[in-house]
Amino acid sequence: MINEQYKKMLEGKSVIRQLSEFATARGKEIGYENVFDYSLGNPSVPVPEKFTQVMIELLQNKSSMELHGYSPSLGITSVKDRIAESLNKRFGMNYTGNHIFPTTGAAGAVAHAVRCVTKPGDEVLTFAPYFPEYNPYINMSGAVLKVVPADTESFQINFDKLEEMLNEKTAALLINTPNNPSGAVYNADTLTKLAELLKKKQQEYGHDIFIISDEPYREIVFEGVDAPYVSKFYDNTLSCYSYSKSLSLPGERIGYVAANPRCTDAELISAMCGQISRGIGHNCPPSIIQLAVAEVLDTTSDMSVYETNMNILYNELISLGFTCTKPGGTFYIFPKALEEDAVSFCQKALKYDLVLVPSDSFDVPGYFRMAYCIDTEKVERSLDALRRFVKENY
Amino acid sequence: MINEQYKKMLEGKSVIRQLSEFATARGKEIGYENVFDYSLGNPSVPVPEKFTQVMIELLQNKSSMELHGYSPSLGITSVKDRIAESLNKRFGMNYTGNHIFPTTGAAGAVAHAVRCVTKPGDEVLTFAPYFPEYNPYINMSGAVLKVVPADTESFQINFDKLEEMLNEKTAALLINTPNNPSGAVYNADTLTKLAELLKKKQQEYGHDIFIISDEPYREIVFEGVDAPYVSKFYDNTLSCYSYSKSLSLPGERIGYVAANPRCTDAELISAMCGQISRGIGHNCPPSIIQLAVAEVLDTTSDMSVYETNMNILYNELISLGFTCTKPGGTFYIFPKALEEDAVSFCQKALKYDLVLVPSDSFDVPGYFRMAYCIDTEKVERSLDALRRFVKENY
Repeated sequence: MINEQYKKMLEGKSVIRQLSEFATARGKEIGYENVFDYSLGNPSVPVPEKFTQVMIELLQNKSSMELHGYSPSLGITSVKDRIAESLNKRFGMNYTGNHIFPTTGAAGAVAHAVRCVTKPGDEVLTFAPYFPEYNPYINMSGAVLKVVPADTESFQINFDKLEEMLNEKTAALLINTPNNPSGAVYNADTLTKLAELLKKKQQEYGHDIFIISDEPYREIVFEGVDAPYVSKFYDNTLSCYSYSKSLSLPGERIGYVAANPRCTDAELISAMCGQISRGIGHNCPPSIIQLAVAEVLDTTSDMSVYETNMNILYNELISLGFTCTKPGGTFYIFPKALEEDAVSFCQKALKYDLVLVPSDSFDVPGYFRMAYCIDTEKVERSLDALRRFVKENY
Repeated sequence: MINEQYKKMLEGKSVIRQLSEFATARGKEIGYENVFDYSLGNPSVPVPEKFTQVMIELLQNKSSMELHGYSPSLGITSVKDRIAESLNKRFGMNYTGNHIFPTTGAAGAVAHAVRCVTKPGDEVLTFAPYFPEYNPYINMSGAVLKVVPADTESFQINFDKLEEMLNEKTAALLINTPNNPSGAVYNADTLTKLAELLKKKQQEYGHDIFIISDEPYREIVFEGVDAPYVSKFYDNTLSCYSYSKSLSLPGERIGYVAANPRCTDAELISAMCGQISRGIGHNCPPSIIQLAVAEVLDTTSDMSVYETNMNILYNELISLGFTCTKPGGTFYIFPKALEEDAVSFCQKALKYDLVLVPSDSFDVPGYFRMAYCIDTEKVERSLDALRRFVKENY
């Protein structure tokens, strides 16, 4: 009586994981420092020193019960209040702690947000290229993920296609800015246009359409790029955040859903998330991590290396003749492959120990993703391999 | 388009939480030390000192990436190996790390285990009295929870009723020993008889029937009580464990599912759990907590206070004329109320600042639960209130 649905899922192995496993295996042969592993979005900079200090102080000074006792199932009140306060100060919002639901990263946040505002059979639209894990988050909720084709010019939104796909069954749009894998950041024009369209459609259909805004890269925005706060543009917005990238602690699984105080049933979203968590027995993120993160809300790791790496790679790619939109943030770049079949392109690159991810995983053919959250020294050493790869194959 | 199912769940407030809130409010009036709060199963003894030391050492000595980087989605390999090793040594099993899936407590473990071995519409049987959170864990998976009436003599298993209820749709039995709320521990006779019955029924129905064994109280067993390891008796067993009680860290959400190496598809259970977690975006417990717990697997908090408290309460209850099965473990006791309506009984007790939980929550009428994970000094002070309550009302 093993559940066949979950058993079947085991067959679909993640391409990114497979590439990462290849990189690890190859590293054992030639030394991992010689594998130019651009596969995984694992932050390469350390946590802020202050985070480690805070953790040690909590362990030394707080009583066992205060530190390790049950967290309220909707999260620790003081932590939620401080997150709300920090968002209000930074983005001119007016959240209270009741609008914040602490989750296990942005992954948990998106999975919960989808369940709050859809019912089985409803459609959720997202935009190619998109993070492939959206599939399990949405499909396992019973809602249906539909993908709006990419605007490959700028990786903003293809509004013509979006309008074609919006329909009565559309319950939510799942957007991701700054974007994995393109590095694009939605500008104020895009967000204004999007909000206007959705307001019109809400009226037309007579029901809410939510924006679920997946924002784990919100703090990784490059010089001169404006990254407006999505929820400012549209009331029915649930913002999904993770500290994984900004504090470099993806293993600790901490983030939140923030419900815009003006969204429908704003006061209930957090409590509904609690019920959703309850059903899977997860309840809440670990108490000590909630308490520690609350002390470093306005800190980030030193993330300047990502912009340095981006500039090196972008310039090299352009000079090698690649078509490539310059990333506005994240630690990803998404150039067009030099042949139609991105899988074959990335396969050839492996011979140069360049581990690139073909764009098919992100539902756009013919591109590839490089995750440049690695040391700058290694990025520089990889350029020669990149040049040889291009010269000898294209 | 707010999801009505989750919204509706908000109406059903937990009786235990409400009582606990009453206790907190009353504590503000008369001092919390004067409220005899037997409502919540929140461990009252501190974490082992070694756990705190290990956490500090990890923070001081490990690199940020090793400590806070992404955990593999099936859990950290070295942690899983050590859990397997510890179980093998203690219970004569032969788990490997691949049979272990780290979860966010026993709650997460049970919710995952149910999804592994049932499909929507299948029946899961549990035994009254039972932990009310089993309802969301099972109902939200699509399976159906059916409750076998209690054996109120000994709180072992009512086999006649069980045989009546077993049928072709039975996919799993969810058992909990040592038991919340009765404190009963299933003995070897009960487990042998259960295993024989299920083996016969598996043959009869031509499909697996799993035991999902919820064991968060496994380390809290009193003198002279034998608490056999369930999985030794029946191959198709998934053991669900939590460190919440044994290490007094319920807020850190850490436990595991251990699949008996001889169960059907034993090698797949852990990977299937990974897929289930993926769908809700939870992925895995926090890295640092996994790493720290692995260093203290064979340690527990000093839990002798629970047995001391049990003896004081048991003797007093018996001398006051209560009918009560002596608990073999946990930090709960489950006496028969002195009137048929347990809710009314517990309501009257509140006037004496005694916070007792009526048994209706556990699907047995006419009993009440006391969670005696509080200071012994307070238990002793509560006896006078208990005596006055009984004398003045019954």
